[in-house]
Amino acid sequence: MAKGTITIADVAKASGVSKSAVSYALNGKAGVSEETRAKVLKLARSMGWKPNSAAKSLSDACTRSIGVVLMVADAEGFGSGLFAMDCLAGLSKAVDPRDYSIVLRMTAGGAAAACRIYEDWIASGKVDAHLILGVELGDPRLALFREHPEAKALFISQREITSGLPTLYSSDDEGARMVVRYLHGLGHRNIARIAGPEEYVHTLARDNATADECSKLGMRCTTLHGKYMAETGERLCNAILDFGHRPTAIICDTDTTAVGALHAALARGISVPEDLSIVAWDDSAACVSATPTLTALHRDVRALGLKAGEMLLHMIDGETVGDEPEPPYRLVKRASTGPVVVSAQVA
Amino acid sequence: MAKGTITIADVAKASGVSKSAVSYALNGKAGVSEETRAKVLKLARSMGWKPNSAAKSLSDACTRSIGVVLMVADAEGFGSGLFAMDCLAGLSKAVDPRDYSIVLRMTAGGAAAACRIYEDWIASGKVDAHLILGVELGDPRLALFREHPEAKALFISQREITSGLPTLYSSDDEGARMVVRYLHGLGHRNIARIAGPEEYVHTLARDNATADECSKLGMRCTTLHGKYMAETGERLCNAILDFGHRPTAIICDTDTTAVGALHAALARGISVPEDLSIVAWDDSAACVSATPTLTALHRDVRALGLKAGEMLLHMIDGETVGDEPEPPYRLVKRASTGPVVVSAQVA
Repeated sequence: MAKGTITIADVAKASGVSKSAVSYALNGKAGVSEETRAKVLKLARSMGWKPNSAAKSLSDACTRSIGVVLMVADAEGFGSGLFAMDCLAGLSKAVDPRDYSIVLRMTAGGAAAACRIYEDWIASGKVDAHLILGVELGDPRLALFREHPEAKALFISQREITSGLPTLYSSDDEGARMVVRYLHGLGHRNIARIAGPEEYVHTLARDNATADECSKLGMRCTTLHGKYMAETGERLCNAILDFGHRPTAIICDTDTTAVGALHAALARGISVPEDLSIVAWDDSAACVSATPTLTALHRDVRALGLKAGEMLLHMIDGETVGDEPEPPYRLVKRASTGPVVVSAQVA
Repeated sequence: MAKGTITIADVAKASGVSKSAVSYALNGKAGVSEETRAKVLKLARSMGWKPNSAAKSLSDACTRSIGVVLMVADAEGFGSGLFAMDCLAGLSKAVDPRDYSIVLRMTAGGAAAACRIYEDWIASGKVDAHLILGVELGDPRLALFREHPEAKALFISQREITSGLPTLYSSDDEGARMVVRYLHGLGHRNIARIAGPEEYVHTLARDNATADECSKLGMRCTTLHGKYMAETGERLCNAILDFGHRPTAIICDTDTTAVGALHAALARGISVPEDLSIVAWDDSAACVSATPTLTALHRDVRALGLKAGEMLLHMIDGETVGDEPEPPYRLVKRASTGPVVVSAQVA
């Protein structure tokens, strides 16, 4: 893809140091000795490299951009874009020091439409590397990038479906277990979960981890699946509360369903957390503004984006990049969870 | 900026129709008669135009991209990016049908750092047009684009500071008056406002409109200014409630400060809305999850972004674009506002 410029690979070959070391040296970054930096700079200059803004960084590629296609949901709800924005902010923080831009497209056409844009980018060389988010079961982008191993691409997804493709994989399994262990510590033995749609890969990952951890700890868990909407949280919470063996805690897969579940419980005169503890995934402003405030799993999405950016730069520099885990989730304890005060109902 | 390709202007000149008509004809869009379309297509082909994906649209520019620099707040709070994301989603919806990408940079360096990136883009021609958000008093980007009238740029800002530059201007004045009239209709005569920092242009616009509308309606309004944080909302609400003439309603400039004010009032045993009505700007999920739910001004940010995209495409097509108002705000009435039940305290 070198369009008439010398590349990091050229300088690396001529100097006998790694591509990363050349990149660090020319970009004034830590990671190489001053001796190596001086050697690389001297050699690069002799090969025609100039430290001006138009050639501040050398690499195999030259568009100085990362391509990202986001899938916009047709439903225009609050907060739908917050994960994407925080992720882009982290990505930007990683690549900005090397003067990289993000080339952004958004499509309402789902994974198929997103796939066509990535296909165009691969064909045209419009971007140096690709970041792929929101992968679904049977997503055509998996096949596309398997057919084009030369295209630099990083998936933020689950390793279960991206095998063979560099992946920054989620901590859903670990997060689900953390919540179960926390509730166990508070004395809960009979819990329920208001989970997301079953077709999402991360729903399956959470289902499996929750069931496994509950089984290890001798806890009972009832799970119902539904959409990420407040009304769904209300409806499923009411269904759970109508059960014969009423659980003492409910885990909700999003902040929105947790707020719905909370309102449903309070409307029935059930005290939170005295009679029922509620935990939300996706910590947000909505968790803080609820009364009582909601205990929630906090995902550091900016740190996730930052790590993605660093992995993409390594790829651009010609390094081999394997799978990496996303930064761990953090459980933020607030007012919606407490110890079991009624006698725990064990199945 | 034509880089060796024929331009819309060339075809317009040769065919004797407007640039917009040429654009519509070549892009297969409505807006020209079939006769004109046939004439333009024939002429454009004779001039060397080919209807392939690389030249689907002709224009004076050729990067097929819109440049946007976002300023990332150093404070990494919830929701700081939501406005930006919704705006980009609307922009994308407008420009996607013409195969335009958004070239995105984010900087933590404030307006000065953002200005340097726009300066680079103007110099390099990396983007066809520029969108500028988050303009401050004395913002260097105002001077930059005044010095470069040839650079196509649209400001989403207040007309008071962007005069001479194409602006999609806010409805802050109208929104502020709408809230005051709504509270007046409920019988409130003595109100307060928890406003944002005084250095923001939109704070001044709201201050002026609120004072003017209150004066017209014979209402009293006390305004305190502070940061957009929940703690600020709590602190200023407590200060207001300690006043001799306690107001019957408080208008907060953001959802965050409104949630803080609500918690402060409830903590003092003040009933909302029986003793105190609360209205928030920036309707959000946090307004819905609060108890009681918060009445709020809703801004259709996607529609704003969409309109910005349409204006930018007109500029790219060589049309003259003037100032336009953003889509009107909408007052969403929820449980935090009600009629005055105690005798209204008139100053």
